[in-house]
Amino acid sequence: MRSVNVNMGKGRLEAFSDGVIAIIITIMVLELKVPAKPDLEALSKVWPVFINYVMSFIYVGIYWNNHHHMFHIVRSINGAVLWANLHLLFWLSMVPFVSSWMGENPFSVVWPMALYGFVLLMNAVAYSILVAVLIKHEGENSALAIALGKDWKGKLSLICYIVAIAFAWVNTYISFGLYVAVACIWFIPDRRIEKKIADDQV
Amino acid sequence: MRSVNVNMGKGRLEAFSDGVIAIIITIMVLELKVPAKPDLEALSKVWPVFINYVMSFIYVGIYWNNHHHMFHIVRSINGAVLWANLHLLFWLSMVPFVSSWMGENPFSVVWPMALYGFVLLMNAVAYSILVAVLIKHEGENSALAIALGKDWKGKLSLICYIVAIAFAWVNTYISFGLYVAVACIWFIPDRRIEKKIADDQV
Amino acid sequence: MRSVNVNMGKGRLEAFSDGVIAIIITIMVLELKVPAKPDLEALSKVWPVFINYVMSFIYVGIYWNNHHHMFHIVRSINGAVLWANLHLLFWLSMVPFVSSWMGENPFSVVWPMALYGFVLLMNAVAYSILVAVLIKHEGENSALAIALGKDWKGKLSLICYIVAIAFAWVNTYISFGLYVAVACIWFIPDRRIEKKIADDQV
Amino acid sequence: MRSVNVNMGKGRLEAFSDGVIAIIITIMVLELKVPAKPDLEALSKVWPVFINYVMSFIYVGIYWNNHHHMFHIVRSINGAVLWANLHLLFWLSMVPFVSSWMGENPFSVVWPMALYGFVLLMNAVAYSILVAVLIKHEGENSALAIALGKDWKGKLSLICYIVAIAFAWVNTYISFGLYVAVACIWFIPDRRIEKKIADDQV
Repeated sequence: MRSVNVNMGKGRLEAFSDGVIAIIITIMVLELKVPAKPDLEALSKVWPVFINYVMSFIYVGIYWNNHHHMFHIVRSINGAVLWANLHLLFWLSMVPFVSSWMGENPFSVVWPMALYGFVLLMNAVAYSILVAVLIKHEGENSALAIALGKDWKGKLSLICYIVAIAFAWVNTYISFGLYVAVACIWFIPDRRIEKKIADDQV
Repeated sequence: MRSVNVNMGKGRLEAFSDGVIAIIITIMVLELKVPAKPDLEALSKVWPVFINYVMSFIYVGIYWNNHHHMFHIVRSINGAVLWANLHLLFWLSMVPFVSSWMGENPFSVVWPMALYGFVLLMNAVAYSILVAVLIKHEGENSALAIALGKDWKGKLSLICYIVAIAFAWVNTYISFGLYVAVACIWFIPDRRIEKKIADDQV
Repeated sequence: MRSVNVNMGKGRLEAFSDGVIAIIITIMVLELKVPAKPDLEALSKVWPVFINYVMSFIYVGIYWNNHHHMFHIVRSINGAVLWANLHLLFWLSMVPFVSSWMGENPFSVVWPMALYGFVLLMNAVAYSILVAVLIKHEGENSALAIALGKDWKGKLSLICYIVAIAFAWVNTYISFGLYVAVACIWFIPDRRIEKKIADDQV
Repeated sequence: MRSVNVNMGKGRLEAFSDGVIAIIITIMVLELKVPAKPDLEALSKVWPVFINYVMSFIYVGIYWNNHHHMFHIVRSINGAVLWANLHLLFWLSMVPFVSSWMGENPFSVVWPMALYGFVLLMNAVAYSILVAVLIKHEGENSALAIALGKDWKGKLSLICYIVAIAFAWVNTYISFGLYVAVACIWFIPDRRIEKKIADDQV
């Protein structure tokens, strides 16, 4: 009975996470307010909000991709994993909020740029906690623990976010550049796990 | 054919519930209105709504976790279970409404605090009805009935909500404290069922 | 390979329908505007919208239940079924719109009451088309065709909606009473299909 | 282990896409603002937005149907497919935005009509990229590559959109007519793939 029970639990956690992430990624588009007039000038005012939407879409997409890859090799879950996952979903759900605050203000304004970084930081922390809880549950020698390895990308991201938040008071363009840079690091799905899957299939 | 039919029914009920709960938990974030100005003062005004969002997120998360645990050991469902489940989803869908009414008013105001408790109470009642319908369907000697046992946590919660509603007219902080206390009781997923699953897997 | 292909198609149609119906049933709660003041009087003004929400929630719930029961014994689908299903989802998606128009006006106003009935009528027509397309695909002697039988409930509902729409110009309370009556007829899930499933399992 | 891993990946991609598309297709109905007065005149003002909603609903429905048909015969996915799919979902998520801009303006206005065509064009491009990435992954001789063949419908659509965008500056009715025409071409689900499935089942 073991595998059946275990897979069911994982299946619903994946389905619920997919639902929440699908909603988060989609409601952000509601922030794109319809231009007041039907001309190019009114449309161009939507531009900063659009850029913001693209970046937040990519960030949420990255989390979905990594979540997808990681749970692909997770074997079973428990109550602590459920809550660590909900904690991650909580911080992901804050992305639309900080994204629209940033979108409604000029790029050069400090607080929205810093808060955006803070929410990205908390997402990264929540993801790290989820990884730690999963490894504790599956064991240090599990396929998951070996596949994830030293997680330098996760650690580098944390440092980048902290630096970016601090730089919001100096120059918000540097902060924004760092957010873009971290997105680029993660854009490629987690090769560690793709490699593991490929190895399994040999 | 039995198991196939039965699992499909349960699968769709779980998927639909996951969808509705995912939407409920996510649309609450839409209540976090973007601050009017890009400074810390404007942001701090969002604070009470944020606290409220956190509590409602945890409450809905608790229901999802317990729903997940309970249906894990449910073997089959029928029409009555579908409606008892929809009844629970109805009261869960009222959480964003009462949550934002509470968030938009000072903590000390009576009616929003009392109505919040009333909706939590109705959720607990709906959950109890769902449990009763499931046990009636599965039988008094089913794994589910044995795993759930006396359900003192459920009964204690009902009492706490009623007391909290009454105290809204005396001191709203006591009411709020009771809501937090019940959340803490439930925060740990249902050990009764985790134990049952663990026993099965020996 | 037949069953695998066929089940996958049905599975995604069910999942997509569950998603759309879950969203429809949940976004209606967004129409419940937070009362302007934190007292009982302001709350009581939400009452008509709340009653409306309850009825629309039950109607959408009935469609989900019947959809769930019907696809339970569907064996395979094709392109025509996909579009007949999307057509049903289209008319279901109009329920929140007519529901809030009705909720924002007094009960005695003609047009919102009539349009509500029109959308219910179109839902019933769309459901009948879906049933016809499914029976054409599965065959007159299929389990589905036999289980559904003469469908007197479907036909009675159509008549009731048409009568209710006409009565909106006479007395809107009669129209509303008819909507409630039809909901009561359908409240019990489709016994024809539950019976079929039970028979299969003997 | 191969098939299990592979099917899981595909399953979650399908589920996530279903979730996002379900939300996109449903939130468009939120654009149907409740008429200000409860009479036929106020209702008739909703008419252009309604027509728009119908067309956008059909367009998103077409994408869901084709996505459903295509992934039906996809055997496995990889990281590039995940991103190509997210890219398609991004452009689909822009449909509600351009749809409501068009709905809020008279038919004869140039920019909303042109932007609507641009977003449809980008959706078609994103779908073509997804197809190309899938065929590169599955191989030129895969069932998918053979079933899709020369894709004249895809190429014709691209040309139609470009012509329609250009004609927005001449006569917006021609543009709209072309959007309707392309929808008609696609309305019938992808026979190439239905044929492939039917052949498999002989």
